[in-house]
Amino acid sequence: MTSEGSLRVMADRQPNPSGEDSLIARYFRPLATDPGAFNLDDDAAVLKAAGDDIVVTTDAIVEGVHFLPDDPPDTIARKALRANLSDLAAKGAAPAGFVLTLALRSADDAWLAPFMQALGEDAAQFGCPLLGGDTVSTPGPLMISITAFGRAAPGKIVHRSGAKPGDRVVVSGTIGDAALGLDVLKGGAVAAALVSDAAARARLADRYRVPQPRNALANAVCDHASAAMDVSDGLAGDLAKLCAASGISAAIDAASIPFSPAAIELLARHVVGIEALIAGGDDYEILCAIPEDRLEAFALAAGQAGVAVTLIGTMMAGSAAPVFLGKDGKELQLERLSYSHF
Amino acid sequence: MTSEGSLRVMADRQPNPSGEDSLIARYFRPLATDPGAFNLDDDAAVLKAAGDDIVVTTDAIVEGVHFLPDDPPDTIARKALRANLSDLAAKGAAPAGFVLTLALRSADDAWLAPFMQALGEDAAQFGCPLLGGDTVSTPGPLMISITAFGRAAPGKIVHRSGAKPGDRVVVSGTIGDAALGLDVLKGGAVAAALVSDAAARARLADRYRVPQPRNALANAVCDHASAAMDVSDGLAGDLAKLCAASGISAAIDAASIPFSPAAIELLARHVVGIEALIAGGDDYEILCAIPEDRLEAFALAAGQAGVAVTLIGTMMAGSAAPVFLGKDGKELQLERLSYSHF
Repeated sequence: MTSEGSLRVMADRQPNPSGEDSLIARYFRPLATDPGAFNLDDDAAVLKAAGDDIVVTTDAIVEGVHFLPDDPPDTIARKALRANLSDLAAKGAAPAGFVLTLALRSADDAWLAPFMQALGEDAAQFGCPLLGGDTVSTPGPLMISITAFGRAAPGKIVHRSGAKPGDRVVVSGTIGDAALGLDVLKGGAVAAALVSDAAARARLADRYRVPQPRNALANAVCDHASAAMDVSDGLAGDLAKLCAASGISAAIDAASIPFSPAAIELLARHVVGIEALIAGGDDYEILCAIPEDRLEAFALAAGQAGVAVTLIGTMMAGSAAPVFLGKDGKELQLERLSYSHF
Repeated sequence: MTSEGSLRVMADRQPNPSGEDSLIARYFRPLATDPGAFNLDDDAAVLKAAGDDIVVTTDAIVEGVHFLPDDPPDTIARKALRANLSDLAAKGAAPAGFVLTLALRSADDAWLAPFMQALGEDAAQFGCPLLGGDTVSTPGPLMISITAFGRAAPGKIVHRSGAKPGDRVVVSGTIGDAALGLDVLKGGAVAAALVSDAAARARLADRYRVPQPRNALANAVCDHASAAMDVSDGLAGDLAKLCAASGISAAIDAASIPFSPAAIELLARHVVGIEALIAGGDDYEILCAIPEDRLEAFALAAGQAGVAVTLIGTMMAGSAAPVFLGKDGKELQLERLSYSHF
């Protein structure tokens, strides 16, 4: 706001690209490979539906909440995109693109260059090009908000609500490693217990920092699952949500839950309890209900996709919360099912 | 992370809705009126394309940057959604829905209730239902990130890049009032000059806080404009962007630019210069290029839509930045064209 009434002469009247425009040009544009992104030169992008349903999901990650202030920028980028890709995978949808909002304290090339490089690599790997973005300045923590799009045949996405009593409960990968990795990065009990095993610490930390979304499993989920969701807030709490959406319950054989060798060792040494693993969050695995007569075909398809899947229990009639049964057949008592922000 | 190996007994094993789930249920779900939102009970929403192109735009607003810390929550909500609706309008697209990411310091009902109430009213008014959302906690400033979707007939959205020499330059509404309103709210020179006119101060502050997106003009833009964008970072800078995207220049008659009575008075009293108005930002008006032979039809359609539009200049061949000509025919010299975050 100026209080002068006259206008001064300026030497260069060419439109001086603002810092924001320059950021877009340098870091965002190289990722906007889809023709519908219009090279990020426009106010909006176009997503061609081509007869498919457009599947929409959104997830934001905040410094100090979803990632650690000293996490490398490339892992932060991958986590931001992959958290969204994981939701698409669980719905049986194929990635189609994403938009990015970056809230930054400053336009720091040393941070932005590796961040956008890794984001571009993931966008290419998962076939999910950048369609648009916004950069805003904030005095607060970094925040990366992504809205991702997928395509699915009309009416074919897999909901949380379709599970039926008798369906088998299946989960991909292993559970709890990301929670252990967070403890490693925070220097907690797990870090102390693994003090002499740098490789194990690094593997767990990597599971926290860089999720492995199961997009390769999307077709198998779409073809065979009666219900599915991604496990991001803890297996126990997320299963409770799936059961609630389906109006049923479940019985889980705790001994069947797939844990990594490191997790099994930490359980055996009583460094952690099972609750820390199944209520820990950040797994980004797929939890699904598979009708009994589809189980073999699903397992075959998962094997062809190269994704390990494990049968952990059965959907049950009733409205009770799902139960986790120990080796003695007795129900485990859990204090906490999942992570909550508020 | 627990270091105990055994599990304690807990009285209530019903899944305890987390604070985050409770927030979604109380504040987000009532806005999720579209069947494709699945009552926000799923990992993703579905946007039926029905043969249309899906138009995607994203805009975030940050406390202290895009709105003032003491702005009322209802106006913050409207600004967040309307900034996105304005982009859809400028592309000639009809609103179809949006997803919302809220970064909050705390789940404060006194703030959230009026915020979501106003957001719901705008969603209904503009036919743009909530399709999904994410809430995250932050120790930093509030941030509202919205990705909005529109529908347009295939290949029919209006780009920035289609303007041709000879096309007429048209803008909706009035320019600069939001910048004046920001100065009023900050207690600057405009506030001092209007100290005895509370109604004028309130009108200008309202233009800053609550944009009036020109979605009513979308059909007219789609039918007649060769290029269009929304004016959000200042008319001068945004016109330069439209010219650059179209590979041409423009000559603007500064005396034709539509200003409100308050702006005209402040200019006459030399409280502000024209630069403060045309480089100010937050107008959320539509700037478009209309071929000469479409001008009458466009004006008629705009009138039927109830949106004032003003002819302010002509697109010119050449790659020079657009020029703003004063009453004497001499070019105004501008130091600053628009607002930049970095």
